[in-house]
Amino acid sequence: MKNKFIYSFLLLCLIISISSCQTNVSSVKMIKTDIPLRPSGQSDVLGLRCDPIPTVRVGFIGLGMRGKGAVDRFMAIEGVEVKALCDLEQYNLDKVQTSIAKQERPAAQEYIGDEAWKEVCERDDIDLIYICTDWLTHTPMAVYAMEHGKHVAIEVPAALTLDECWQLVNTAERTRLHCMMLENCCYDKFELATLNMAQQGVFGEIVHVEGAYIHDLRSLNFNDRLSQTEAYEPGTGTETKKTPGVIGYWNHWRKNYNIEHTGNPYPTHGLGPVCQILNIHRGDKMNYLVSVSSNQFGMTEYAEKRYGKDSPEAKQSYELGDMNTTLIKTEKGKTMMIQHDVTSPRPYSRIHMVSGTQGFAQKYPARQIALNSHSALPRAEMDSVLNVYEHPFYKEAGKRAAELGAIAHGGMDYIMDYRLVYCLRNGLPLDQDVYDAAEWSCLIPLTELSVQNNGAPVEVPDFTRGAWNKLKGLQFAQ
Amino acid sequence: MKNKFIYSFLLLCLIISISSCQTNVSSVKMIKTDIPLRPSGQSDVLGLRCDPIPTVRVGFIGLGMRGKGAVDRFMAIEGVEVKALCDLEQYNLDKVQTSIAKQERPAAQEYIGDEAWKEVCERDDIDLIYICTDWLTHTPMAVYAMEHGKHVAIEVPAALTLDECWQLVNTAERTRLHCMMLENCCYDKFELATLNMAQQGVFGEIVHVEGAYIHDLRSLNFNDRLSQTEAYEPGTGTETKKTPGVIGYWNHWRKNYNIEHTGNPYPTHGLGPVCQILNIHRGDKMNYLVSVSSNQFGMTEYAEKRYGKDSPEAKQSYELGDMNTTLIKTEKGKTMMIQHDVTSPRPYSRIHMVSGTQGFAQKYPARQIALNSHSALPRAEMDSVLNVYEHPFYKEAGKRAAELGAIAHGGMDYIMDYRLVYCLRNGLPLDQDVYDAAEWSCLIPLTELSVQNNGAPVEVPDFTRGAWNKLKGLQFAQ
Repeated sequence: MKNKFIYSFLLLCLIISISSCQTNVSSVKMIKTDIPLRPSGQSDVLGLRCDPIPTVRVGFIGLGMRGKGAVDRFMAIEGVEVKALCDLEQYNLDKVQTSIAKQERPAAQEYIGDEAWKEVCERDDIDLIYICTDWLTHTPMAVYAMEHGKHVAIEVPAALTLDECWQLVNTAERTRLHCMMLENCCYDKFELATLNMAQQGVFGEIVHVEGAYIHDLRSLNFNDRLSQTEAYEPGTGTETKKTPGVIGYWNHWRKNYNIEHTGNPYPTHGLGPVCQILNIHRGDKMNYLVSVSSNQFGMTEYAEKRYGKDSPEAKQSYELGDMNTTLIKTEKGKTMMIQHDVTSPRPYSRIHMVSGTQGFAQKYPARQIALNSHSALPRAEMDSVLNVYEHPFYKEAGKRAAELGAIAHGGMDYIMDYRLVYCLRNGLPLDQDVYDAAEWSCLIPLTELSVQNNGAPVEVPDFTRGAWNKLKGLQFAQ
Repeated sequence: MKNKFIYSFLLLCLIISISSCQTNVSSVKMIKTDIPLRPSGQSDVLGLRCDPIPTVRVGFIGLGMRGKGAVDRFMAIEGVEVKALCDLEQYNLDKVQTSIAKQERPAAQEYIGDEAWKEVCERDDIDLIYICTDWLTHTPMAVYAMEHGKHVAIEVPAALTLDECWQLVNTAERTRLHCMMLENCCYDKFELATLNMAQQGVFGEIVHVEGAYIHDLRSLNFNDRLSQTEAYEPGTGTETKKTPGVIGYWNHWRKNYNIEHTGNPYPTHGLGPVCQILNIHRGDKMNYLVSVSSNQFGMTEYAEKRYGKDSPEAKQSYELGDMNTTLIKTEKGKTMMIQHDVTSPRPYSRIHMVSGTQGFAQKYPARQIALNSHSALPRAEMDSVLNVYEHPFYKEAGKRAAELGAIAHGGMDYIMDYRLVYCLRNGLPLDQDVYDAAEWSCLIPLTELSVQNNGAPVEVPDFTRGAWNKLKGLQFAQ
């Protein structure tokens, strides 16, 4: 009896060992993350339409680096009321109130302090919460806002972890509210022209796309924000070089993130426009990615020069490699290449490249379009093609965007907000849905996972949970 | 006793199972290929010097696409005798003999037929075998030539499989003969200027490099070679558009390769120059790669248009994805991005990008240099920098290369052959050694392996078998 038991035990161990071995093998071949079951009674929000909102009442949270411009743009759009402003620093609130007063609009209600954003979300006279805070707070605020019945617009990236991505999806599906990530580069004139060309078949079958965020942010990452007492003059709203807040990130949040994380922490500017071109979750989907980062050299060398070799900044270790490159394969056999480098002295680039069986376009480092030819079009012909395929959004609102100058950020930020308000006022599906927000943001944890495993392939979850082929192509509601 | 035996047997199985499980996991995490033991009595050929050869006597094998130009260039270099010519087609031999006669040089011995190349290798009055045949024959010919006491120069790629890579390394180590892959792009003026800048520290610590071979070869792949009877006029050597052999690959060898293989079958033009910049096997080494290919769309669509939807060409399946992108991580934490696309209508590009902590350069699609700045230098300043860092090879031989015009291929092909002959005549180590040939060629099988495993990481073998850190940086012998 005892012997039998020992035999059985050893045999069982052997079987478990062999089977767990096989499991390990397949799970290592492709790293897969858990896809939570859709809570019962909940369905997807693809093409979500909500009641029209004739006047969109907005609460803005975070008025530092990106928030003030957002308020200024919203005041340039018809049918908007700026109801509430929330920040951690009084001078940011003052600055925006000054701007509101200049427009001869009623002052917005002010909220200040760590938890004040919750009060904004809890108000019952607000339709949209517009979030421009640091990355770490995007999802908690968006979820809380939706739970309190508000549509949300969130600066990029919308989420930092897979759990946050699923929180956004689940909350939007449960509350039936809009959750749009503010991927402004999707509204750039060139990007929209290439989307238009893609949708009209100019590139033929699209085979490969590229995007990037290459932007030397070393000085911004290390800059201190000037303290209020040092440089702040209440009520003046002066936009001088010494204006606090505009030369560094609050509490060095971006540098702190780079200290702790590798992979691509900021993929969406390059990824968003090319996902739209490939109709991701509208007929195609991202299946898996592989991601490789260089070691970190740039932050340390910069810190040594600026603060000295023995400074804490120079001795600090930074997890984030200088250059991250990620490759993605889609269900339909297309490939995407996405890069991130914010710590090298390089010219700014989002690449934005589209390569198909009948045409090619690239924005950085130099604009190139080639149509059924291995020769790029001469400048004048390229401009004429771009003119022919100018996106309807620019035909419609490009002039107004140009008039607004800097706050429109080359046009794209204005068109983005203009479209958001337009769709809300008319009860239309938004241009970017919560699945876009989750898909584009999920590269942050997934690239980190791949980098930490020598570039091993990682499955990209289908955030629609099976409905990626329901919509046939991206269509902007009109 | 019997029970004890069964216990022991089951325990052993369990241990084997657990340990093999761990092996499997680690071997799947990173696919590793076998590294053959170095045969006893053999040592590395790093910095190999051979006896000076005052007059280099050359036998050329393969005179179709690249061979004729090679003979013409060699005749422009001092201290060279063209002893033998070998091809499968008489008109190629005639064409080159005409060229030789024009230079008032003695006719070379002609060899024709499938096995004729062996006779060339077996001659005892030849120092160098120069191989410009199709890819499949490069390694067998090179190995046979070395085994018959000849130095070899091989068109790219030198090898197609890992076994061939190791054959080249083992044969060169055993015979103590030079085996150089003819990676001409390493001799391009811009590439050499950036190498010079890298070696002088202009880029600071180099973090990331990129290279590519993006060249629309669809028509060349499908073209038939005109038959002799149709268009050949013996003895005229006319270089008209109808000259046989120049508008297609012999027996469609390149198309046939693309039918059977995926990955990156032609990585060296982009890879060679950036490996030199990173001092690969001269202080750093490639550790692993991940590689992802798009599906194939371009060949089929092209064939449908050219031959009709029902043609054999359109119905043929092609393994090679249109776009392959490969990421490589080095021992010192640098990254490389290498691309291949020969089936899309895109402008030609080898990218050639170098990004460091203090500077940046890129060749395609537009030349850009930025030094410690996120702004690219204006054109005139960039030209002046390129002038300051003009490589000594161009100072030395650039004028002669320019005089030669088309046969020098923008200079690089002449400088390459000029350097090869110079080093042989002076008993110096060649600029590219057999480890370069193996390292740069091994991407062909390794990228295919990665692509076939959803981009899984694949270890890049150290072909020096432990000596990658012996040489401190790349130095060209003088």
